[in-house]
Amino acid sequence: MDNLLDRVQNVLLLGPGPSPVAPSTYQALSRPTLGHLDPFFIEIMDEIKANLAIVLGTKNTFTIPISGTGSAGMETAFVNTIEQGDRVLVLANGVFGNRMIDVATRLGADVDVLNFPWGQPVSIDQAADKLKQNQYKIVAMVHAETSTGVLNPAREIGDLLKSTDSLYLLDCVTSLCGMPVEVDNWHVDVCYSGSQKCLSCPPGIAPITFSDRAMEKITNRASKVPNWYLDMNLLTAYWASASRVYHHTAPINMLYGLYQSLYNVLEEGLEQVFLRHQKAHARLIAGLSEMGWEMLVAEPYRLPMLNTVKVPQGIDEKALRARLRDQYLIEVGSGLGDLAGKVIRIGLMGYGAKEENVDRLLKAIQEILK
Amino acid sequence: MDNLLDRVQNVLLLGPGPSPVAPSTYQALSRPTLGHLDPFFIEIMDEIKANLAIVLGTKNTFTIPISGTGSAGMETAFVNTIEQGDRVLVLANGVFGNRMIDVATRLGADVDVLNFPWGQPVSIDQAADKLKQNQYKIVAMVHAETSTGVLNPAREIGDLLKSTDSLYLLDCVTSLCGMPVEVDNWHVDVCYSGSQKCLSCPPGIAPITFSDRAMEKITNRASKVPNWYLDMNLLTAYWASASRVYHHTAPINMLYGLYQSLYNVLEEGLEQVFLRHQKAHARLIAGLSEMGWEMLVAEPYRLPMLNTVKVPQGIDEKALRARLRDQYLIEVGSGLGDLAGKVIRIGLMGYGAKEENVDRLLKAIQEILK
Repeated sequence: MDNLLDRVQNVLLLGPGPSPVAPSTYQALSRPTLGHLDPFFIEIMDEIKANLAIVLGTKNTFTIPISGTGSAGMETAFVNTIEQGDRVLVLANGVFGNRMIDVATRLGADVDVLNFPWGQPVSIDQAADKLKQNQYKIVAMVHAETSTGVLNPAREIGDLLKSTDSLYLLDCVTSLCGMPVEVDNWHVDVCYSGSQKCLSCPPGIAPITFSDRAMEKITNRASKVPNWYLDMNLLTAYWASASRVYHHTAPINMLYGLYQSLYNVLEEGLEQVFLRHQKAHARLIAGLSEMGWEMLVAEPYRLPMLNTVKVPQGIDEKALRARLRDQYLIEVGSGLGDLAGKVIRIGLMGYGAKEENVDRLLKAIQEILK
Repeated sequence: MDNLLDRVQNVLLLGPGPSPVAPSTYQALSRPTLGHLDPFFIEIMDEIKANLAIVLGTKNTFTIPISGTGSAGMETAFVNTIEQGDRVLVLANGVFGNRMIDVATRLGADVDVLNFPWGQPVSIDQAADKLKQNQYKIVAMVHAETSTGVLNPAREIGDLLKSTDSLYLLDCVTSLCGMPVEVDNWHVDVCYSGSQKCLSCPPGIAPITFSDRAMEKITNRASKVPNWYLDMNLLTAYWASASRVYHHTAPINMLYGLYQSLYNVLEEGLEQVFLRHQKAHARLIAGLSEMGWEMLVAEPYRLPMLNTVKVPQGIDEKALRARLRDQYLIEVGSGLGDLAGKVIRIGLMGYGAKEENVDRLLKAIQEILK
């Protein structure tokens, strides 16, 4: 029997995620599987929780990894906090803001949207006006919009919300461990992320944290959470109670991967990790600029880990990406929605955020276009 | 920094799952991560779908792995097929039947339950009577009840339902690849499983299949599926359409693991795999019987891969399990619910279903009790 896995090549992942994985994390995935109630596995769970709290910048007790990808994190955030008819405001400027609208609407929320052009950040002033006009149970925003490469003003929106009764729900899928995320300082009530961006673990795990205020809403719901798998009341009984009540069988080996990814980030030091992302980003911008290529996003709002560049007229971006993949074993991302065909998205995430990777990519593009 | 992973021991997993993992599957988990839209990864996806269909005994087009554990499979099965107020019958005789009731109720179904004592199978006659009295949109049952070790009459319930309009929803988390599962022959409309039982992959993936009839109900729903992450309409656009529309980032490395697990099962041959489970099971029963220990379940209804044995009076089962784990590096499972403290559950699943493992366990128990 032919085994396709024997032909999996080592592709340099410079797209919007998954990102390159460190050898130590690959090794972690292959450690012997333990039972999900094994006492030593519970030690590992406890350290994962503690280290997640450090990188998220929170003292929240309810900080755990969800057994699914980043999108399961988004689902968990909304399905636990929304009750039928709750007014929700989404500040949207890309695919993942739009996904929030879809997720919340399906759950029976009364969703209001403040839309901003793709490639531009959420306006603090317009958000402030909106919040003066209406009261919301939940206000939700994406910190780092992976579809455009825009950084949204997470701290400032938190400042607007801190004296209100609204829960503040922030998507940090792409930002976590690539730039500062300060859940407590920014007054965020629910924050989730994914394993496959700047944490540099393969996809499959979604870190999430809930403030005491959010957990109070969840434990006092009038109706049960309409999702057994993601019900925080049940998940905390497994992850955070002394008795470790069995809920579902945790994805043991993926959690080994998450453990090692967190270990790697904390060993290098968060500040150092952020600096490495900034340096790789700066080198990419300089190189693209020398080639005369323009960025989609204005300088103050650019994400270091997700760079959206306009493809100059006359260049077939699809053919460029295909040649990068096939001849140079480099993956970059396409544009989404209206940006399809017009931009490419270059990820410099986690273990991949290195100047040598930037040089390899720029050289490959130059050779292809020669 | 101390790294807990350096101290993970190789524990022989003879509990209710996760089960022992083959070296080739551990190796698969560490293959280089590819992008979720990478053309070579799409080849791997296609082969996973084809091989899942073989082991499930189905020609269903909609046969895919869900990005979550077996419980996410259950959630996917119900959340896609239930609409508000739908009448659902659950045939329940253990923890996982009860979980179905909880899941379906949270989703707004009108749930009717036919309960059977734990340790006994679902009665075909009583089910037939119930079906004569009422009409149900969905009838759901667990094939192999992991909490008790009982085999339920999946084929016979399918025969009762085939001429009705009810969708037949079957949980094959523990049975798949350890004994015959014949989705098409048994007229099953929705069948899900987990990776961490007889497939011998670590936990984190849930195979699922939907009949055309089930997909027709799903595509014609009056309301959107109230779960974006698990909406089959969106998942099939990624897994089964020519255009491979991005939905969420698939858990690439876990899918490598699933690929290899399926490869291993098909290389050995399904019939051979079933026989290996039967042999290990027979050896365990013989050994326990020699020791004078009794099984919870009567002979015709015993599962080969999950053996529930009554702990004789005077033996502290908790202490026994702890010594097995600490001194002999063997995990076995505790009893759940009313069975807690009275039984232990011995799993012989997938790569772990070997006579040598049975001998190692029996020898350890005998030494401890000496």
